[in-house]
Amino acid sequence: MDIAIVGFGGVGRALLELIYDKKDDLASEGLDLNLKYVINSRGGTYNPKGIDLMNFINFTGENRDLNSYQGKGSKPASFDDIIQNKDVDMVIEMTPSNLDHGEPGLSHISRALAKGIHVITANKGPILLAYDKLQDLARENGVKLGIGCTTGGALPSVNAGLIDLAGSKITSIEGILNGTSNFILEEMENNGLDYDLALKKAQEFGIAETDPSMDISGLDTGTKLLILTNVLMGENKTLDDIELVGIDSIDLDQVREMAGQNKRYKLIGRSIRTEEGLSISVKPELVDRDNLFYNVNGKDKVVRYISDTLGDLTIIGGASGVRPAAASILRDLINMFREGV
Amino acid sequence: MDIAIVGFGGVGRALLELIYDKKDDLASEGLDLNLKYVINSRGGTYNPKGIDLMNFINFTGENRDLNSYQGKGSKPASFDDIIQNKDVDMVIEMTPSNLDHGEPGLSHISRALAKGIHVITANKGPILLAYDKLQDLARENGVKLGIGCTTGGALPSVNAGLIDLAGSKITSIEGILNGTSNFILEEMENNGLDYDLALKKAQEFGIAETDPSMDISGLDTGTKLLILTNVLMGENKTLDDIELVGIDSIDLDQVREMAGQNKRYKLIGRSIRTEEGLSISVKPELVDRDNLFYNVNGKDKVVRYISDTLGDLTIIGGASGVRPAAASILRDLINMFREGV
Repeated sequence: MDIAIVGFGGVGRALLELIYDKKDDLASEGLDLNLKYVINSRGGTYNPKGIDLMNFINFTGENRDLNSYQGKGSKPASFDDIIQNKDVDMVIEMTPSNLDHGEPGLSHISRALAKGIHVITANKGPILLAYDKLQDLARENGVKLGIGCTTGGALPSVNAGLIDLAGSKITSIEGILNGTSNFILEEMENNGLDYDLALKKAQEFGIAETDPSMDISGLDTGTKLLILTNVLMGENKTLDDIELVGIDSIDLDQVREMAGQNKRYKLIGRSIRTEEGLSISVKPELVDRDNLFYNVNGKDKVVRYISDTLGDLTIIGGASGVRPAAASILRDLINMFREGV
Repeated sequence: MDIAIVGFGGVGRALLELIYDKKDDLASEGLDLNLKYVINSRGGTYNPKGIDLMNFINFTGENRDLNSYQGKGSKPASFDDIIQNKDVDMVIEMTPSNLDHGEPGLSHISRALAKGIHVITANKGPILLAYDKLQDLARENGVKLGIGCTTGGALPSVNAGLIDLAGSKITSIEGILNGTSNFILEEMENNGLDYDLALKKAQEFGIAETDPSMDISGLDTGTKLLILTNVLMGENKTLDDIELVGIDSIDLDQVREMAGQNKRYKLIGRSIRTEEGLSISVKPELVDRDNLFYNVNGKDKVVRYISDTLGDLTIIGGASGVRPAAASILRDLINMFREGV
């Protein structure tokens, strides 16, 4: 299978390493992955016969200017070349996410699908803004759209709803969907760090971004929750439909006081369908010790579904970082081309 | 799709009700299920044009002699007719499980697969004894074998390993895999019932079987664990390879004493690969309050995987009874015929 990678950062590099390391396992799944394009915002490289993985991985260790890659048979390329040449089966779209207009990912995904190229994306923006349209486009062109990596990396949240609850109606979704804020809350409770120090520690550990506002404000949780809600409950909600409260509303004294009562704050996203309609919220909530969410700490995440015929299903996972994120893209790829279970 | 049901009890009846109730949802998945055969140990019924679901469901409310079903166009039939006529796409095999020789399920499954008929089974015996052979047979004949219901009903345990951890290597499996014993342990702790009374209550609630020995002895847990181990870790272990201790080794005083120390007994199945090899055990273990398993109570079940690239994954679910079990068969059926995610 010929593939193109569009948007190339740490996860992209980890994905190439994983494809290299897991070559035999992939072969046993019938997958022989041949990398033809790697494109980033500055340019890209193309090799019609396939890019030598290890050589390219080594190159990108020191160099971000993909146009200058000199591998044998490789030449500079742009995203347009992928569409014009139409010589790949799969585009893996990993450009930075934009929640307002979804670009450039939205155009990449639409254009690839319209050309009959499968797409897997880790990009939340386009899925949040246009899942239904993209899914229709995929169907019309006889290809598939994988979105497993958009709602929590290694935690198989959206795929669990699609696959593990296939045939049932999901009536409620709740979860701790952001590892950074969960890590900060644990540091406050366990190590008595105030909010600012806990955030600093998360940044030092490489868990929080330099700009942590997405995580802290609940926006990251809200985005993931919306994707889950729209995809799994058949809705078309936007960020305007969510009540959004972040963890910056909580101080150390509150955390300590509640710890004394065996309660913990957790930043919980929740979509519940009642007779009055669907309510969607993201806010810190107190959970007590008997609650399954109480022991989901640190970078761990959880999602809990309630369904009509398959009951409750709670999924907890925590692997974060570039390699698990890359592995979740590979998971989508394998599941897409396995014929059923 | 034309289907046959082989082995017809409470779950089979619930499955027919579910197919009737979910007709529209199934249609939206592209599935139009047409029931041609229902076979049980005493006989069966066959209608080449399809059995009227509601009429048949009503009949079986009062009657177990399927040969005597008088629906229009229906006639008595046996399993052999399915194989000879070869006019169904799918056999759903739900005869009682036998862990020694796997019959009659093993023959039903092999014969159907060999004729190019897909099979979904809820029957542990054949999968425990012959998973590899049956999977090879399915592959050779271009059909699929669904086993999602063999390892915990509504809890998507084996499928989570296959799908949600696709592309990773599973190095450890642990779980609370038997709802009955978990319910009894909770009753002992929470309501101070001794073992015999707790078991009686489980039987009154319809949770424990009249003969609860499979659940209590750890054999049910061991069987499920072995299937998970063989399928997901590529092993070929048998019940002889497991250290098996049941919950009948625990008395009320022990439960009370540990509750005072914020610990709980849980019947845990565990397969761990180390440098010395694979160790497989089922036994009551003490878990403390910080452990995720501590709050998996009552009929709930849990399975936790550790993988190389996708980290830890814990799945908790509890729906038990005939309808969730039936829904888990329907889930396999939907996933089998969806083209990828």
